[in-house]
Amino acid sequence: MDNQVMEKPKLTVFNNLESEVRSYCRSFQTVFDKARNARLWDTQGNEYIDFFAGAGALNYGHNNEKIRQKLVDYMMQDGVTHSLDMATEAKETFLTRFQEVILKPRGWDHKVMFPGPTGTNAVEAALKIARKVTGRSTVLCFTNAFHGMSLGSLAVTGNSFKRQGAGVDLSHSVFMPYDGYFGDDVDTMAYMEKLLDDPGSGIPLPAAVIVEAVQGEGGLNAASGEWLQKLARICKDKGMLLILDDIQMGCGRTGPFFSFDDAGIEPDIICLSKSIGGFGLPMALTLMKPEIDIWEPGEHNGTFRGNNLGFVAAAAALNYWETEDFQLDIGIRENQIRESLDCIAKYYPQLSGEIRGRGLIQGFAFNKPELAGRLSEIAFEQGLIMETSGPHSEVAKLMPPLTIELDTLEQGLGIFINSVKQLAAEERLS
Amino acid sequence: MDNQVMEKPKLTVFNNLESEVRSYCRSFQTVFDKARNARLWDTQGNEYIDFFAGAGALNYGHNNEKIRQKLVDYMMQDGVTHSLDMATEAKETFLTRFQEVILKPRGWDHKVMFPGPTGTNAVEAALKIARKVTGRSTVLCFTNAFHGMSLGSLAVTGNSFKRQGAGVDLSHSVFMPYDGYFGDDVDTMAYMEKLLDDPGSGIPLPAAVIVEAVQGEGGLNAASGEWLQKLARICKDKGMLLILDDIQMGCGRTGPFFSFDDAGIEPDIICLSKSIGGFGLPMALTLMKPEIDIWEPGEHNGTFRGNNLGFVAAAAALNYWETEDFQLDIGIRENQIRESLDCIAKYYPQLSGEIRGRGLIQGFAFNKPELAGRLSEIAFEQGLIMETSGPHSEVAKLMPPLTIELDTLEQGLGIFINSVKQLAAEERLS
Amino acid sequence: MDNQVMEKPKLTVFNNLESEVRSYCRSFQTVFDKARNARLWDTQGNEYIDFFAGAGALNYGHNNEKIRQKLVDYMMQDGVTHSLDMATEAKETFLTRFQEVILKPRGWDHKVMFPGPTGTNAVEAALKIARKVTGRSTVLCFTNAFHGMSLGSLAVTGNSFKRQGAGVDLSHSVFMPYDGYFGDDVDTMAYMEKLLDDPGSGIPLPAAVIVEAVQGEGGLNAASGEWLQKLARICKDKGMLLILDDIQMGCGRTGPFFSFDDAGIEPDIICLSKSIGGFGLPMALTLMKPEIDIWEPGEHNGTFRGNNLGFVAAAAALNYWETEDFQLDIGIRENQIRESLDCIAKYYPQLSGEIRGRGLIQGFAFNKPELAGRLSEIAFEQGLIMETSGPHSEVAKLMPPLTIELDTLEQGLGIFINSVKQLAAEERLS
Amino acid sequence: MDNQVMEKPKLTVFNNLESEVRSYCRSFQTVFDKARNARLWDTQGNEYIDFFAGAGALNYGHNNEKIRQKLVDYMMQDGVTHSLDMATEAKETFLTRFQEVILKPRGWDHKVMFPGPTGTNAVEAALKIARKVTGRSTVLCFTNAFHGMSLGSLAVTGNSFKRQGAGVDLSHSVFMPYDGYFGDDVDTMAYMEKLLDDPGSGIPLPAAVIVEAVQGEGGLNAASGEWLQKLARICKDKGMLLILDDIQMGCGRTGPFFSFDDAGIEPDIICLSKSIGGFGLPMALTLMKPEIDIWEPGEHNGTFRGNNLGFVAAAAALNYWETEDFQLDIGIRENQIRESLDCIAKYYPQLSGEIRGRGLIQGFAFNKPELAGRLSEIAFEQGLIMETSGPHSEVAKLMPPLTIELDTLEQGLGIFINSVKQLAAEERLS
Repeated sequence: MDNQVMEKPKLTVFNNLESEVRSYCRSFQTVFDKARNARLWDTQGNEYIDFFAGAGALNYGHNNEKIRQKLVDYMMQDGVTHSLDMATEAKETFLTRFQEVILKPRGWDHKVMFPGPTGTNAVEAALKIARKVTGRSTVLCFTNAFHGMSLGSLAVTGNSFKRQGAGVDLSHSVFMPYDGYFGDDVDTMAYMEKLLDDPGSGIPLPAAVIVEAVQGEGGLNAASGEWLQKLARICKDKGMLLILDDIQMGCGRTGPFFSFDDAGIEPDIICLSKSIGGFGLPMALTLMKPEIDIWEPGEHNGTFRGNNLGFVAAAAALNYWETEDFQLDIGIRENQIRESLDCIAKYYPQLSGEIRGRGLIQGFAFNKPELAGRLSEIAFEQGLIMETSGPHSEVAKLMPPLTIELDTLEQGLGIFINSVKQLAAEERLS
Repeated sequence: MDNQVMEKPKLTVFNNLESEVRSYCRSFQTVFDKARNARLWDTQGNEYIDFFAGAGALNYGHNNEKIRQKLVDYMMQDGVTHSLDMATEAKETFLTRFQEVILKPRGWDHKVMFPGPTGTNAVEAALKIARKVTGRSTVLCFTNAFHGMSLGSLAVTGNSFKRQGAGVDLSHSVFMPYDGYFGDDVDTMAYMEKLLDDPGSGIPLPAAVIVEAVQGEGGLNAASGEWLQKLARICKDKGMLLILDDIQMGCGRTGPFFSFDDAGIEPDIICLSKSIGGFGLPMALTLMKPEIDIWEPGEHNGTFRGNNLGFVAAAAALNYWETEDFQLDIGIRENQIRESLDCIAKYYPQLSGEIRGRGLIQGFAFNKPELAGRLSEIAFEQGLIMETSGPHSEVAKLMPPLTIELDTLEQGLGIFINSVKQLAAEERLS
Repeated sequence: MDNQVMEKPKLTVFNNLESEVRSYCRSFQTVFDKARNARLWDTQGNEYIDFFAGAGALNYGHNNEKIRQKLVDYMMQDGVTHSLDMATEAKETFLTRFQEVILKPRGWDHKVMFPGPTGTNAVEAALKIARKVTGRSTVLCFTNAFHGMSLGSLAVTGNSFKRQGAGVDLSHSVFMPYDGYFGDDVDTMAYMEKLLDDPGSGIPLPAAVIVEAVQGEGGLNAASGEWLQKLARICKDKGMLLILDDIQMGCGRTGPFFSFDDAGIEPDIICLSKSIGGFGLPMALTLMKPEIDIWEPGEHNGTFRGNNLGFVAAAAALNYWETEDFQLDIGIRENQIRESLDCIAKYYPQLSGEIRGRGLIQGFAFNKPELAGRLSEIAFEQGLIMETSGPHSEVAKLMPPLTIELDTLEQGLGIFINSVKQLAAEERLS
Repeated sequence: MDNQVMEKPKLTVFNNLESEVRSYCRSFQTVFDKARNARLWDTQGNEYIDFFAGAGALNYGHNNEKIRQKLVDYMMQDGVTHSLDMATEAKETFLTRFQEVILKPRGWDHKVMFPGPTGTNAVEAALKIARKVTGRSTVLCFTNAFHGMSLGSLAVTGNSFKRQGAGVDLSHSVFMPYDGYFGDDVDTMAYMEKLLDDPGSGIPLPAAVIVEAVQGEGGLNAASGEWLQKLARICKDKGMLLILDDIQMGCGRTGPFFSFDDAGIEPDIICLSKSIGGFGLPMALTLMKPEIDIWEPGEHNGTFRGNNLGFVAAAAALNYWETEDFQLDIGIRENQIRESLDCIAKYYPQLSGEIRGRGLIQGFAFNKPELAGRLSEIAFEQGLIMETSGPHSEVAKLMPPLTIELDTLEQGLGIFINSVKQLAAEERLS
């Protein structure tokens, strides 16, 4: 890869015709064309290793061949593509597979809702049903949470820049400190419980708590199992529903299928999207315990809740979870990444970064926030796509497809280390 | 078609595993499998004519072959499927084509935003930017409007059943009477203007007005061109933005590409989704006049706003609009449907139905609302898929793909007329 | 009265020390000192006739001697002044008298709540209990309504200037057109009923409707008896509570004790304040049908809900209502005022004013709104205090104490007519 | 005092005619009639010592003779009683005295607003102007805060029972932990600052912080001077306004005129009510730094904002503050109360009470909340009026007039101690 010498395609069309809201295309200034597993190519043939994976939507890589063939076959056989929420064979297959591979082994009997094809649809539906079931309106959420861009989801999202975008006051949500927010010594669940126990705290009894087991956009903050268990216990005690937003962290991103599997909790409601669609196709699920599933028919709907290509790809992707092999493969890659991060932490103490995250979403939180963005720039120049996260965009995030080949991962980590080296050199000069 | 004698597939899997929220699958109790243009088949081989067209998402029919081939070729050549909002060749092609075929002929220079792949994403983005541009929060909307299920869109949607689903009070919206709401004599725009002119009316100066040129879910109510022009003029006078939600009515459903083309207005913001994705694939656009496009990068985002299969299909579908032939074809079909409706109105005056709608979304509003649902049942038994709309589900809606073959249309209308006949017979007996 | 030659006292202290929010003292630039019945004197001895009557709080005149003596006696005998909501003899007397003189003759058994001593307290309490009883949150209110300045009352107040003062979006209220809002031909109650009957109107089933029988601040718009009866009937049909805000119009301002007495309706909740305190003392009542009185003890409270001087004065003032004499006296004065207005309307058609209101709150609505304010200025220069109202401050309002002596009224009307004459002269010149 | 043997008057009239919302009259089941300084008598002649003082509205005692004479003289000389916000001599005198006695000695130049005659009016006005000045909507408030019953004030009040009374979701407020909320070790201001510094915390930049220096209703929690200073500094740093609600704690209740005088802070906005009216008369002030006083004339108004009897009494009451003698007298009484409390804490450790509060608002917080209410009952039987506060009504509150004679105080404390003794005996038996 010799990207520096090759010319990049121009973005004239995008600059002229597309809205100013476009974002990532400003960081990664090229026009992509083709992609396979963890590699992308632009229209000039430049090659890139993908440590971003569609922000978690491409856990199974680009153009995963096993899935693609299923899709093409389905289409060529006149399979129904769009079906609203009518019954189709593709949906039947997905439902059956999801029960067999995901729910049954956990002893769960959650009902599956197709709330529309995006994460924010899944969250909006979760909030609605939690409010309906409890007859309450407030939802507790956490500092630096990210749950989506439509008004209901945005109200439980911490990022002030996104929130201001709403143009109206966001209501019916109360923010609590996430695990570790006040340092390791402070048990933020004890704090939350005190507020809920105190009739003078100003916090009404909530309908639900919505939480991510690892906060991706919020800076790769990971909740401990113990903290999640306490949260689940408090929810039960107070009659609040526990909504686990596993949109980004689910489908193996942190190792197991669900990011909270190791905590041993069974959330009342689970939101899935991003990689559930297997192939990068829009799809989302809201899972609910059966006793919560008190929807009236059509009380929530949406045109694209029956995206059958998504069902076909999703069913195929579930094959990865029939045995434990895939999780083991993820573990091997997790360690490889962690070693590189440890190495950097050791050799560049002057960058004073903190290692964050777990599974295949790990990163480096810089004390000087701007270093993360600069690192991403340098990496891109060298053919690696990686992004930042956190309230100050201070975390450089490594997030390859789970299916990345070991040598590609090695190659990508090499670029990453080189980029850190260059960053350190720049810092010395400045 | 002899559906009555053939057994229908069972919905056991759906009943057991899918949420109670499922809706259409209760009206159309079978499991669909294959589809081509305006025909569907279930897993038992029963055939159905589709007068529903994915609620407007399948204007170009099921498995449109011209589009499908482009999709399969793209996938097999490792085309990027999922790209967040990074620049891709597929998006570039779509943008270029959309400008050439849609914007330029109208003399428009709207910027194109990809707000996420569903209609409600497009509306949420429109509301956000309107509030940002004006610094105001209230949005005017209309009786029986339908704009989507996420909290921002739901606040401007009239249907009380859907609204109650929110579980919280919906705010920052004020409802105005749609064209004709108080009968033909009352100019509802004069009413709206009086309220806006009166500093004591309790109605704050709004950020925007959001409107459908024809209300699909609301019962096929069509606004006159004059009414839309007045609305556009008032918006201009008051410094409010005009948001035209053409999600269901756009892409030719009423004849021209935009449902408001004949009114000669140029909305500040236009929302498109459903059939814009060409093949039934999730995709949505929010178009904005350039001076409104004051988004900060990333102020609104979403994982699936870069659904490249959607771009590929959408670009292919725009070919239909290069000449006026397609609109003429739609006109022929429009007349055919209208004739059948006229005929029914004439021969079954006792059903006291009112003909509603235009283009390929026409229907029959019954005085006895339950007749519409019963008619849909009878039609389904005879192999025709059609749905109801309106606040009391009182409108039987005919909404085939725009590409429906003339003989299939004839056949479908035949079933429709037979069904009305049976309905009339049942009514006589009751 | 020769005010023009006498010097007015300076307002230096007020200009220096009091907030910019002060308002009436800018129109009536003097320092008042003494007052008796319908006359005021400033510290320089200038005399003024009062056609404003404390915006309706001084129906029984300034320093009403019968009431004053009771107050002074009470105080000198160590009567309890402040009692929170503890039981006192003064409150017992008031309650007993209110039942005897007001409730019993009407056959009503409303419970009496002391919600705090101001009108907005009475409205806030009314809204709370209506929401509690029905379990709903929306309250319907009317164009140009005025109900108070605290956040709950402001939400049902139409005036945009006052509303903007809130600094937050006001919610849970929906505005309906008041009687006559769209001209005499349009039945605005039919409109309201249609919206409530339509599940697609976007208007949720409300907890209550709050209404004034005559809108004082809103421009002296008077609802017909028929309109109020329809409103009461719709409220009953829909299970909404009818809240009658009689704060300004009650206590005889329009003739009978309640402004809606002639309509023959029995509102579920009635708000009283202003003149209920008899002597201009802060006091307010919220009356509720017994079945609505489901408050928990202390669920609404307030430090000054036990203002015993108010109770003493209020009980004394109720003596006016033991016979019909007082209402007859008001009628005589009403006619006297109406004659003057008719006379002006006849002789100054070029001012194109419309006579508004009834009882002892009548006025002149000018087509050129600024004339009302100018008229008030001229009148003040000549020793008459009168104010404007209406969304554009376009109504010159005549609102003397109900107890005004006939010759003082005559004298005041004389100044009024002179002032109109001067105004007409000015207009000719301009 | 031999109350036990004397019959109490019946509350039949109140039970029959007054709303169920009545509260204190249920605890103190008698009908009061007369009162002087710290003593009350019922209609049967039973005598009571008042350790409640109108919940802080009677700091200068019942029927304070110096003030009463001024009031009677004013009334008998035809002084204006009610003046809306017109200028009167009585108001001029009050303004002048308030500046001389209160503002000038502190070097302050706050403007004085008369927002209506109750505490909640003062708070509503404070919130409005803070939102207007900053253009922001959120207001920070504290756990167990109490600011009033109208919708704006209720939104910043912690008590869940009162909040539920609203019947709508209360918005635009965020609760922070008050000083000491998480124990003595946790600096709750550091917590608040972290949230405000973090763009991902979900807490928008607030318009203001509203705080009580001692929380009366919230359970006599007292903020330290250091905590208040930090709060003032953070407000300044962030451009938030500091609103000090001194409605209950001001006018000497805690010793100095303002409860926060010792902290040396100068709040941007100060709310006063209750005892500012001198004689128990409804009156309230909102003080604002001049640069904040950007009200438009009449942007906030209210019928009773010109209660001249309040001005007369308030001006007279300010005489107490011309020298330091009054504060010294309060100090003597403070110590006397503290000694009694210490004594009880020492001799009845089994009641495990915690001494709370300062100045002449001190009390005993019981671990078993119901003991506080029982103690109040016992005390009332013995002729002492005292109330409870705190989220669980767990604090027995001693709150006599500041002017209480030393021997009456002694007598009252004697009853208090006897009551505790009886309570302890009951507890032993149970």
